[in-house]
Amino acid sequence: MPDATTPPRFDIIGIGNAIVDVVAPVPESFITRHAMRRGAMTLIDAADAERIYAAMPPGQESSGGSVANTCAVAAGLGARVAYLGRVADDQLGAVFRHDISAAGVHFPTPPLIGGAPTARCLILVTPDGQRTMNTYLGACVAFGPAEVDAAAVASSSVVYLEGYLFDEPAAQAAFRHAAALAHAAGRQVALSLSDSFCVDRHRAAFRDLVHGHIDILFANEAELCSLYQCRELAGALAAARAEVALAAVTRGAHGSVVLRGTETVEVAPVPATLIDSTGAGDAYAAGFLTALTAGRGLASCGRLGSLAAAEVISHYGARLQRDLTAAAAALG
Amino acid sequence: MPDATTPPRFDIIGIGNAIVDVVAPVPESFITRHAMRRGAMTLIDAADAERIYAAMPPGQESSGGSVANTCAVAAGLGARVAYLGRVADDQLGAVFRHDISAAGVHFPTPPLIGGAPTARCLILVTPDGQRTMNTYLGACVAFGPAEVDAAAVASSSVVYLEGYLFDEPAAQAAFRHAAALAHAAGRQVALSLSDSFCVDRHRAAFRDLVHGHIDILFANEAELCSLYQCRELAGALAAARAEVALAAVTRGAHGSVVLRGTETVEVAPVPATLIDSTGAGDAYAAGFLTALTAGRGLASCGRLGSLAAAEVISHYGARLQRDLTAAAAALG
Repeated sequence: MPDATTPPRFDIIGIGNAIVDVVAPVPESFITRHAMRRGAMTLIDAADAERIYAAMPPGQESSGGSVANTCAVAAGLGARVAYLGRVADDQLGAVFRHDISAAGVHFPTPPLIGGAPTARCLILVTPDGQRTMNTYLGACVAFGPAEVDAAAVASSSVVYLEGYLFDEPAAQAAFRHAAALAHAAGRQVALSLSDSFCVDRHRAAFRDLVHGHIDILFANEAELCSLYQCRELAGALAAARAEVALAAVTRGAHGSVVLRGTETVEVAPVPATLIDSTGAGDAYAAGFLTALTAGRGLASCGRLGSLAAAEVISHYGARLQRDLTAAAAALG
Repeated sequence: MPDATTPPRFDIIGIGNAIVDVVAPVPESFITRHAMRRGAMTLIDAADAERIYAAMPPGQESSGGSVANTCAVAAGLGARVAYLGRVADDQLGAVFRHDISAAGVHFPTPPLIGGAPTARCLILVTPDGQRTMNTYLGACVAFGPAEVDAAAVASSSVVYLEGYLFDEPAAQAAFRHAAALAHAAGRQVALSLSDSFCVDRHRAAFRDLVHGHIDILFANEAELCSLYQCRELAGALAAARAEVALAAVTRGAHGSVVLRGTETVEVAPVPATLIDSTGAGDAYAAGFLTALTAGRGLASCGRLGSLAAAEVISHYGARLQRDLTAAAAALG
């Protein structure tokens, strides 16, 4: 078993929902008419997926999944990255596997045979660039402790866990298992809270996970306030500072704030024309973790996060379309 | 059976290869390394499709197919449109069916059960916006005379045939059958030559089809020169003028030229920033046929064609992303 004295094989290993996104622009009235929770991720069953898809305009399909997006972007920024998540052995599963592999991410999880189809997320983008997501989890749900590749986790500097996965008990067990394996090997454990409604659904389990197992916490303001049930961000930040070694909290157009011990770093946003906000937080985490595992200071971590987020929101789709390696290197 | 005195139910009915596109940007070196014919459409088998897909960068999937693109764009411009083409009953087939239906196109062809999977086209876009296409035909090949919906063809003002489909004998028979049904009902038959290499492969059959069955011919310069084996465009234009009632010949950045009897109309291009040329000719045909079946003059037909082409080349993907109905109405 590798330990902290073994050089890591990967900088980042992600664990998340392996999803193919179907993106379409819609008018505001579409969100209202279908009584959707604007800007949130809602879990839907196969019947709802059929119904919403039938009502949607023509779409564009591309690989998604919050932590999978982070992994693909981090690889594009030069990090060595692996990913664990479940697809089926169907056409959309092949698309997901191709895309994450072509992005340079090691993806060892075998496909699910004879079960539910590959997960898909119906993403409706309103004219203001806001995305409303409807996720049919399909094969993703077949992810438990047995799917955690122990050798890969133990040889990664950081294991990065996706809050969205936390809706399933088997995945919750997988997270605790992965965190234990990482810590036993002297590695760090990061978590994205993913969505304030997801935190609402599982607050006690999230609090327990963060308190006992998480070294690095990614959240936006709403998610952090939901986790600590604070009305004001200041209170939630104080609670996070006391509980995790490192926290990076994104604040949309206001940039982000990074906390480590008594240190506080305010990070300015990188200007961008907002087309589709899908993947902004995922890209931020990618930039942050890429810089962190390369030994950069907190300001550089936040800056690379902002840079990656700005690239991703300037077009449809949650992965890089421009080569940012030169920009990443320039941050030194 | 409807005839010319029955008001048509559709303005346009397209018959073509029902394909899902997989688009990815690549450097010039990718085209060279894989010995591809730059800018052309090449037919590939399942093994080649696997090999090229594995080497490709992450892609974006969306519904394609030359005449299917024309149908979707024409419906977006306000025409009443139907489409005939074969997909399988798999995930990509469901994507194709959803997208063309959501675009407002009637799509009655039942899926192929237990045969080849839905066709896909691997489209590699080089930095100059040129696309090089590799098509695995899959389920498309299962299209013959039996798949021609006679009632729908007879009640459409124009049946529009895709040259690409002409690689298969069953499809060639389907074209002749559709043309005969249309003419018996007093309707018109249009053809897109699609690709100069496709014309090369089947020149005699194309010449026979154009001479005996086609009223409206769409081609670019290279395709028309290949059909008539002329080195100069002038000779090919003269041959087309003598053979078909109406010809619209696209000339890339130089716009298009429209011929009807002794009439010649030069159409200026609409300025656009070229991102991805995929679908430029398809969109031109959509604008042209939409205006033509609405009773507009040749100059308006060419102008709406240029307008639709300009919209489609200004982004990745071969279908409209902006609403052009107001612009189309303004041409009235």
